Amino acid sequence: MTSPVIFEIDNQIGWLTLNRPEAFNSMDEETMRRLSEIANQCSCNHSLRVLVITGSGDKAFSAGGDVSAFARDPEHTDQLLMDMTTYLHSAIARFSALPCPVIAAVNGMTAGAGLGVMACCDLVIASENARFTSAYTQIGFSPDGSTSWYLTRQIGPRRAKEFFITNRILDAEQALDWGLVNRVVPAEKLLDVTKELAMMLASGPTQAYGKVKELVDQAQTTPLVSQMETEARAIASLSQTSDGKEGVRAFIEKRPARFTGH
Amino acid sequence: MTSPVIFEIDNQIGWLTLNRPEAFNSMDEETMRRLSEIANQCSCNHSLRVLVITGSGDKAFSAGGDVSAFARDPEHTDQLLMDMTTYLHSAIARFSALPCPVIAAVNGMTAGAGLGVMACCDLVIASENARFTSAYTQIGFSPDGSTSWYLTRQIGPRRAKEFFITNRILDAEQALDWGLVNRVVPAEKLLDVTKELAMMLASGPTQAYGKVKELVDQAQTTPLVSQMETEARAIASLSQTSDGKEGVRAFIEKRPARFTGH
Amino acid sequence: MTSPVIFEIDNQIGWLTLNRPEAFNSMDEETMRRLSEIANQCSCNHSLRVLVITGSGDKAFSAGGDVSAFARDPEHTDQLLMDMTTYLHSAIARFSALPCPVIAAVNGMTAGAGLGVMACCDLVIASENARFTSAYTQIGFSPDGSTSWYLTRQIGPRRAKEFFITNRILDAEQALDWGLVNRVVPAEKLLDVTKELAMMLASGPTQAYGKVKELVDQAQTTPLVSQMETEARAIASLSQTSDGKEGVRAFIEKRPARFTGH
Repeated sequence: MTSPVIFEIDNQIGWLTLNRPEAFNSMDEETMRRLSEIANQCSCNHSLRVLVITGSGDKAFSAGGDVSAFARDPEHTDQLLMDMTTYLHSAIARFSALPCPVIAAVNGMTAGAGLGVMACCDLVIASENARFTSAYTQIGFSPDGSTSWYLTRQIGPRRAKEFFITNRILDAEQALDWGLVNRVVPAEKLLDVTKELAMMLASGPTQAYGKVKELVDQAQTTPLVSQMETEARAIASLSQTSDGKEGVRAFIEKRPARFTGH
Repeated sequence: MTSPVIFEIDNQIGWLTLNRPEAFNSMDEETMRRLSEIANQCSCNHSLRVLVITGSGDKAFSAGGDVSAFARDPEHTDQLLMDMTTYLHSAIARFSALPCPVIAAVNGMTAGAGLGVMACCDLVIASENARFTSAYTQIGFSPDGSTSWYLTRQIGPRRAKEFFITNRILDAEQALDWGLVNRVVPAEKLLDVTKELAMMLASGPTQAYGKVKELVDQAQTTPLVSQMETEARAIASLSQTSDGKEGVRAFIEKRPARFTGH
Repeated sequence: MTSPVIFEIDNQIGWLTLNRPEAFNSMDEETMRRLSEIANQCSCNHSLRVLVITGSGDKAFSAGGDVSAFARDPEHTDQLLMDMTTYLHSAIARFSALPCPVIAAVNGMTAGAGLGVMACCDLVIASENARFTSAYTQIGFSPDGSTSWYLTRQIGPRRAKEFFITNRILDAEQALDWGLVNRVVPAEKLLDVTKELAMMLASGPTQAYGKVKELVDQAQTTPLVSQMETEARAIASLSQTSDGKEGVRAFIEKRPARFTGH
């Protein structure tokens, strides 16, 4: 049996591939359980410097939760959803808190909880043929998988309500304009562009990236003056790391820095 | 005497029209009192499935608070403003918390507190000739009617400060680009487009829309992991509603769902 | 010795110029100490009606913290950064809380902590040749100077992470599109446009501007209904000021208002 999620590590870069292409990489309970396991594994792998999340094939990144599973035993779909979200939400909580950069390489259609897997990544590169839609209210459901949280913050509450209520479909350019993704590239270049970015970040100052992530996440709920105090402690502490010292030296010597992640 | 606010319900769709076209649908104390009454009435009407808010005529959605009233007894304008905001702010609090979708059909100029009535709606369709301006500091006043809250969140603090300090006038396209409105249509099509959307949403999964509204509103102040737990309970509970079951069945049977709002 | 910061007051308008053009107006400890002193002076000058912050020359607004200083004694750069941020962060806290409008006139490249000095202003006018980049992780450091707080709120967390992690360089048009700046003008017009805006605001209703600033800042963390209650008290209180009364009178008499700031 093929695994619904493929996970490999190559040169400190983790590659996670949603692998049910015949079902548009939709996620059933087993897929979500695997995602959760991999998220935990990544959380404890202190040599990981970048994680990439993508989908198999050229049709979909992920169509979200597997609706056919919801139809199997309608009187107990609530139990199934509690089980599925236990795995999915734990996975997203752990991915979002990874200390290294996480890149989504969006290779096609993305809907429902698939949007959550994408939205919790730090950087999103989308192929030109990517499409984005909520799809939840289309079946009388409401958003899960962190989508109501991330989209409200990434595209604002005005557009988030439209997106979730009307199930409007965004194309890649619209998603870029709204700030849902960071970059749009031709489909045939998605893998190369992603690899190039992943390798660049994997040779970057990993601890500084981790502090950026913490600071941006914290900024949304922290008062200005408290945030600046956290900024001060973070930059002072990084100045004493190996990468911080190398970064300053390289700048003065007008040469590229050689970061080690330490 | 003509009523300053017209309110009718037709096929579970409420139509609220600000009706002082000779005064650009500006709002005096009586208008705000009526708004508050109607908001309370809507809050207790559990069969309402959509509310539409618009303005009379083709000039203005609403010019905001009635400045001529502020000039009547200058030494006691503070008392008048406390009275007016008692009504207006209660109306906006109740409209914003309605469990069904609320659509603003913006048929022209919108200023001051008129922006608040618009901003608290879930979806905003604007006519091409709509214009948006704060106007508060022009008379030495500061924003009310929820405008400082909604605009800061919808267009961001950088643009909100410019909008309120400089009284810059936005046209419909600029408002769309900033995410203040969801859609711009030719003036002569505003009513038809609004009706079509209202009818579509009135035959949608009303409870799911209500959960979307709660989730997006809550997302702005709730930590990620708590938000996901709320998402999980919401989607599980909707899966056991009549509309949730019909939605899944219709999806599997590849046919449009027939939602009842239950 | 030339002063690293020039500060003058002319007709109730403060002009602060970062003045190390030979070093791209980067900020060393002494520059930050001066900024802090000036910020305190502005906080206690109750006749100030506008503050403008700009940079000397036509190359840079500010390149941020002076990296050459970080290289001087690498084992104690953490101590230096704690000292520098003590001054810089106090300056930014005080500038951001000034009751009068603060305008940044961005005359060129802006990086690192220079972005913080810009971001804490209420209105930002940028010259066409302005460029914006984070630069922190390039030397293995993390954001300071309020940049992680303001940029997350002004351009959203999705774009903020990209900006800080990849050190992407934004040109003026991109910064305008993202809402990082309010207006872009040809380099040779920057001073005139800034003067015109400063003079307009210096003859405006200063107390109303102050309330706008408080309301927008507070909106981001206050629940809707509490915010409306604050709005009500603010507008009622302004209606009893000299400028509030003049504003209403002028509106009724269809003439420009003559505000005094009281």
